[in-house]
Amino acid sequence: MDKEELERLLADKKSKDLPYTRILSSMCTYPHEVAVHAHEMFIESNIGDSGLFKGTKEMEDEVIAIIGELMGNSNAYGYITTGGTESNIQAIRAIRNSKRREGLCDMNIIVPETAHFSFDKIADILCIEVRKAGVDHQLRVDPESVKELMDERTICMVGIAGTTEFGQVDPIEELSEIAKDERIFLHVDAAFGGFVIPFLADRDKYKFDFTLEGVSSISIDPHKMGMSTIPAGCILFREESYLKELAVSTPYLTTKEQYSLTGTRSGASVAATFAVLKYLGKDGLKKVVDRCMSLTGLMVDGAKQMGIEPVIEPVMNVVTLRVNDVNGVVEALRAKGWEVSTTRSPEALRMVIMPHVTEEMVKSFLEALNEVVR
Amino acid sequence: MDKEELERLLADKKSKDLPYTRILSSMCTYPHEVAVHAHEMFIESNIGDSGLFKGTKEMEDEVIAIIGELMGNSNAYGYITTGGTESNIQAIRAIRNSKRREGLCDMNIIVPETAHFSFDKIADILCIEVRKAGVDHQLRVDPESVKELMDERTICMVGIAGTTEFGQVDPIEELSEIAKDERIFLHVDAAFGGFVIPFLADRDKYKFDFTLEGVSSISIDPHKMGMSTIPAGCILFREESYLKELAVSTPYLTTKEQYSLTGTRSGASVAATFAVLKYLGKDGLKKVVDRCMSLTGLMVDGAKQMGIEPVIEPVMNVVTLRVNDVNGVVEALRAKGWEVSTTRSPEALRMVIMPHVTEEMVKSFLEALNEVVR
Repeated sequence: MDKEELERLLADKKSKDLPYTRILSSMCTYPHEVAVHAHEMFIESNIGDSGLFKGTKEMEDEVIAIIGELMGNSNAYGYITTGGTESNIQAIRAIRNSKRREGLCDMNIIVPETAHFSFDKIADILCIEVRKAGVDHQLRVDPESVKELMDERTICMVGIAGTTEFGQVDPIEELSEIAKDERIFLHVDAAFGGFVIPFLADRDKYKFDFTLEGVSSISIDPHKMGMSTIPAGCILFREESYLKELAVSTPYLTTKEQYSLTGTRSGASVAATFAVLKYLGKDGLKKVVDRCMSLTGLMVDGAKQMGIEPVIEPVMNVVTLRVNDVNGVVEALRAKGWEVSTTRSPEALRMVIMPHVTEEMVKSFLEALNEVVR
Repeated sequence: MDKEELERLLADKKSKDLPYTRILSSMCTYPHEVAVHAHEMFIESNIGDSGLFKGTKEMEDEVIAIIGELMGNSNAYGYITTGGTESNIQAIRAIRNSKRREGLCDMNIIVPETAHFSFDKIADILCIEVRKAGVDHQLRVDPESVKELMDERTICMVGIAGTTEFGQVDPIEELSEIAKDERIFLHVDAAFGGFVIPFLADRDKYKFDFTLEGVSSISIDPHKMGMSTIPAGCILFREESYLKELAVSTPYLTTKEQYSLTGTRSGASVAATFAVLKYLGKDGLKKVVDRCMSLTGLMVDGAKQMGIEPVIEPVMNVVTLRVNDVNGVVEALRAKGWEVSTTRSPEALRMVIMPHVTEEMVKSFLEALNEVVR
């Protein structure tokens, strides 16, 4: 096939992908222009063989320090993963391996019932039981429920800082206290919230990071609110020993061992993450969050004016609305060109106000919603 | 930081990465220009939420059919992974889950002792024992050794079509016969060889794909000899039921379930793989392999003229040379600007003749080698 024919074919495929300007259902967005530029510049870099790509490796080390500092610990240990699922797998695998060496078997972890579906995948992969703790009326995990599920085979509690469905933050300060009392590993899934909560006006209400002594590890995704390119997740451990639990020796590479789940690994996404963090800095990241939160407020207020109430007052840039016949509304909105998603319990419409969302989009969406629910 | 400062910083990091023109140790290479173009065009696409990116999904389906056909089965079931490690994890996980549902525990798999280090990682992750079978004098797995290691808890045999260290191909036809006799799952790791062997002049000597009835699954990496962008691996199963073993239900996405290890997943790499396969076609892929094999011959002949013998006559584009003081030679070559790697057993110099290698590079490398070993 010649290049012209290929170009036509790619353009045809592209036309079948939705632009993010119609998408309110996703935690992904257009990567920042500096991310795209850096990604292209390092497109061939394989950070999995970091002795060959020492510049990329320096960027990864700097990114880990920057994100660590954002998470309250500039000496955290970790690496850039393929995303939240790998980060969560690796956190649970690290504590599992540590306990397995002590002779423990039939282990379990406790996650909120609002945890991301990846924890079911992780249970399957790692041969671990996942117990699901109940939540309060604000859809935050109930620490009492967590304690009730705990037994001598519980190796880890998980708290969510920004639930996928509701954008809610678990009471991680309380989980941290339990973690300290019970000497149990506490993993915080901040895949979505990690780049949001530190920039909220009322962030002190939502402590979730390494400044809490009981927090052992954190997942945070640059390819979500960090506006980096896919694949870019990040796993951070407070203690190096847990990262070491993941080590596999790597003959025929330029490094002696590797901690990542994958072997060959995108250096381009590392460069992209580095570029966004350096270019935006904390001030720039805060502006992104401020804008998303302002549009979140606009959407919720608009919905309330129609008599539609949110399931919870948004903590971050996720809007969930109580409507009748949720699936019917989703289909009707789709017919009008809007992609939204739903929550399960309670059933509601769900919109994520990512950086690609504009005021015009919110207003136009509200008009469509008004027509649909009338 | 402003854009100019960022640009200088990125350029500084880039200058510390080695260009592939100095690298003979890696199974990665510059992605093809059409891969880079397609990657950029679909940079924001998340194939993990494929209902939003239907054009990308169409490309993935076509890629699976094209690679399946190349592997002797255009009706194979699979998806584009992050690379060989994920593909191998998923193959072993599929058969493990199937056997676990039958009540089996303490399972084991048998891999050649020449298998990629990712199988040690997989054993750790999936809680499975990995048994390592011996190899013959040509460094191909010994089917008798495989049979001796087998017991009632053996759920899978692995054959390698293109070993990482020597580029050797296991006698997969014989493994396939054992697989049929013993009714056991046979996974073929063709991460490297999958895009090489079908284009070799003597390919009939190296049967390894779904045309062998006993082969259950194949890993093959577009981001190695397929000249796609990182991350692009591929797992293929003969039977859909094994893919289904990997299913996790996915609320709040546009699809009902997901088979991949990761959640968010690069659509850009899918587009890149699609572009290379469409643009080059089988003829183009064969030309790439022809050229690599010709340069492989040039390097081995040049070494022989210096009195240096290869460990095995190259089957594919991997050259291993017997030299004294291997690590000293590696360091001396590095001082001359060449990155090569080593094999473990026997110890030898190892060079991979990827598509970025030119005749000038081979000649210049041979001169350096001559000076070093003299």
